[in-house]
Amino acid sequence: MRYELFYWTGIQGRGEFVRLALEDAGATYVDVARDQGDGVMMTFLGGEQAGALPFAAPFLRAGKLVLAQTPNILAFLAPRHDLVPTSVASKCFALQLQLTIADMLMEVHDTHHPIAVDQYFEDQRMEARKRAEAFRTQRLAKFLDYFEQVLERGDGHHAVGRNHSYVDLSLFQLMAGLDYAFPLAMKRLRRHTSRLRSLGERVAARPRLAAYLASPRRLPFNEDGIFRHYPELDDA
Amino acid sequence: MRYELFYWTGIQGRGEFVRLALEDAGATYVDVARDQGDGVMMTFLGGEQAGALPFAAPFLRAGKLVLAQTPNILAFLAPRHDLVPTSVASKCFALQLQLTIADMLMEVHDTHHPIAVDQYFEDQRMEARKRAEAFRTQRLAKFLDYFEQVLERGDGHHAVGRNHSYVDLSLFQLMAGLDYAFPLAMKRLRRHTSRLRSLGERVAARPRLAAYLASPRRLPFNEDGIFRHYPELDDA
Repeated sequence: MRYELFYWTGIQGRGEFVRLALEDAGATYVDVARDQGDGVMMTFLGGEQAGALPFAAPFLRAGKLVLAQTPNILAFLAPRHDLVPTSVASKCFALQLQLTIADMLMEVHDTHHPIAVDQYFEDQRMEARKRAEAFRTQRLAKFLDYFEQVLERGDGHHAVGRNHSYVDLSLFQLMAGLDYAFPLAMKRLRRHTSRLRSLGERVAARPRLAAYLASPRRLPFNEDGIFRHYPELDDA
Repeated sequence: MRYELFYWTGIQGRGEFVRLALEDAGATYVDVARDQGDGVMMTFLGGEQAGALPFAAPFLRAGKLVLAQTPNILAFLAPRHDLVPTSVASKCFALQLQLTIADMLMEVHDTHHPIAVDQYFEDQRMEARKRAEAFRTQRLAKFLDYFEQVLERGDGHHAVGRNHSYVDLSLFQLMAGLDYAFPLAMKRLRRHTSRLRSLGERVAARPRLAAYLASPRRLPFNEDGIFRHYPELDDA
């Protein structure tokens, strides 16, 4: 199967969670918009293509199937590429964790866009400072403590049971993004995130992942994606 | 199977999407916190119970399995109760739609809590007015147009193919909540939501659903849930 991934060029964004799974699996895929430009996605988003109508990118074409929503794409890919244990309980738990990551991503996004997704950060900067403060002081540790506890209840090294899974890949990406966006707040929480940090290091050292991360396909974080580094939104 | 649903008493909230599926399926379930009080959830959220650790309610106990995250619970229940077609494509599309509903719910919630989930509406009222205006003018029609288009691309009456599914139940709940929270904005968009409105009426007329909606188990919407009616957040 040769997959086609559709996502905005120029940012890691939500597409990166799918990309990491495809890269780690050694799957054959084309990053279509990077070849053809963002315009190629418009016929899908405009309803001119067959298959499931996506509300937004990322979406994936797998044969005749079109799938959107990151956790849905990952839950589809995972059993086909040994990225989740086979039991119903494991699959459900993996999806549950991925959905909690998705919730956290939405909150991270809203630290720089608390009022309107369609307006610039600069036009909602005062509100962003308030929202980011609430996020850093009330939400960040709550989410990270939760994921630490999940690792602790498992074998200490994996999110789902004793197996590598797509959730581990996503937790790596989550930590990398948070370190980029909120370096001071993340430093403050460092001793509460030791399992997540070890997990991140192990994931980054997986041969296919290491090759990907060193390649030009891995874009750097920047101020157009979900994880943005605005010093005024970090700890003082 | 006798399910145990755990969700905060006093509100419909996200738990209602699970409740509608259980009621429509005629499944046997206990709404545990309504019997025993909200405190019963703390041992789960605090990690003192076996099974998957939930980050938040709702969560469901099904035999030895514990599941959290509304779309995950629904995707688990649906094939067991004929609430989704059996093909992989249909299951993926149903989950994709449910995740898009979940995204919209998060945006609806943030119209009254744009700054901090842990603070009162009254303490973020000015920001809420701005966020609600952006939601009503930029996001509401975009989401509803999307779901209308999904119905149109199917048989016109169902979200997923030609079959009743949990997504139809959730779209009913979404429309009911939006009508409660934003009556004027929803009136303005009425002629763009005719398929969603017909779908809602058909769902509400399903015998088990009609019985549920007329029962005291169906709580009224109120200003503690996701969908809140604050006139200042609606169209002028």
